[in-house]
Amino acid sequence: MSAAASTHVATRILGLDPGLRITGFGLVDQLGTQLRYVASGCIRTRDGELPARLKTLLDGVREIVDTYRPDVVAVEKVFVNVNPQSTLLLGQARGAVICGAVACDLPVAEYTALQVKQSVVGYGKAHKEQVQHMVQRLLALDASPGPDAADALACAICHAHGSRGLGALPGVGTRRRAGRILG
Amino acid sequence: MSAAASTHVATRILGLDPGLRITGFGLVDQLGTQLRYVASGCIRTRDGELPARLKTLLDGVREIVDTYRPDVVAVEKVFVNVNPQSTLLLGQARGAVICGAVACDLPVAEYTALQVKQSVVGYGKAHKEQVQHMVQRLLALDASPGPDAADALACAICHAHGSRGLGALPGVGTRRRAGRILG
Repeated sequence: MSAAASTHVATRILGLDPGLRITGFGLVDQLGTQLRYVASGCIRTRDGELPARLKTLLDGVREIVDTYRPDVVAVEKVFVNVNPQSTLLLGQARGAVICGAVACDLPVAEYTALQVKQSVVGYGKAHKEQVQHMVQRLLALDASPGPDAADALACAICHAHGSRGLGALPGVGTRRRAGRILG
Repeated sequence: MSAAASTHVATRILGLDPGLRITGFGLVDQLGTQLRYVASGCIRTRDGELPARLKTLLDGVREIVDTYRPDVVAVEKVFVNVNPQSTLLLGQARGAVICGAVACDLPVAEYTALQVKQSVVGYGKAHKEQVQHMVQRLLALDASPGPDAADALACAICHAHGSRGLGALPGVGTRRRAGRILG
């Protein structure tokens, strides 16, 4: 962080991409228009009884919060699956992940995958690889983060962009088609 | 509790019937074949943002656990709705309710509505009123509990029956039709 920037207080955003088997997480510090990568990774649950898996997610999020002390949590709204049983399982995982945040009295913002992709890639139907690429670029990372961590970081970036108005970063939050900025 | 019974330690079972708007709860003490009503009621969430509603459910379950100190939690498996969005919301509520239990390091058992009704009424397709009636009778209550509390108490009773084998109580866990015990 530069000396000039250090007079401001950064907001630390924890992005979460919920899943029963793998929940991605990513932390980003926002200072004005600057974004700084803090950490990212996954919480993995083992096959087994649902309550134990939900506990792993709950404790995992609480541990991340304890370690990195974010100011706000941004959670991706999950995709409604065609299989109702899968939707129910995913819902329960998302409930546990959000509980990990609210149990620590953190504010939680929710974003759809469309919002996240529009904010990070500028195109709501962007592929996973495009999201990974733009996350790497926006956070000036040496390597591309894994897909789950990238989605979580993208969600944190989406929150950062949203909190100062979409399109505040050049080329971010605007929709490009064939090189034209559409809005 | 009788003097003879007091030489044994009762198991306190917390039954939960999860819902985003209303989550029913009911506590029952089990001592051998005896069941004793402890308390029941509902956790209600106000309309508003999902994370705040999930926090109400999480905190509500934790408060019940703090107050009544159950040994085990029995949670009803929720019905998969035809509407995927409703299924997702219900799943998140159920995730929060289970998190309330596992956050307190309590073991959680899950039962389908079919198992609960079969155990309490002896018929898996029993109506709500039949469940309420049998809960009142099995727990020797002066009045019928509300439908959400009754479902939660029924879940706790189902766990009590299951933990010493279905059908251990006369007329419970057996299926009757037109007065005939079917098995």
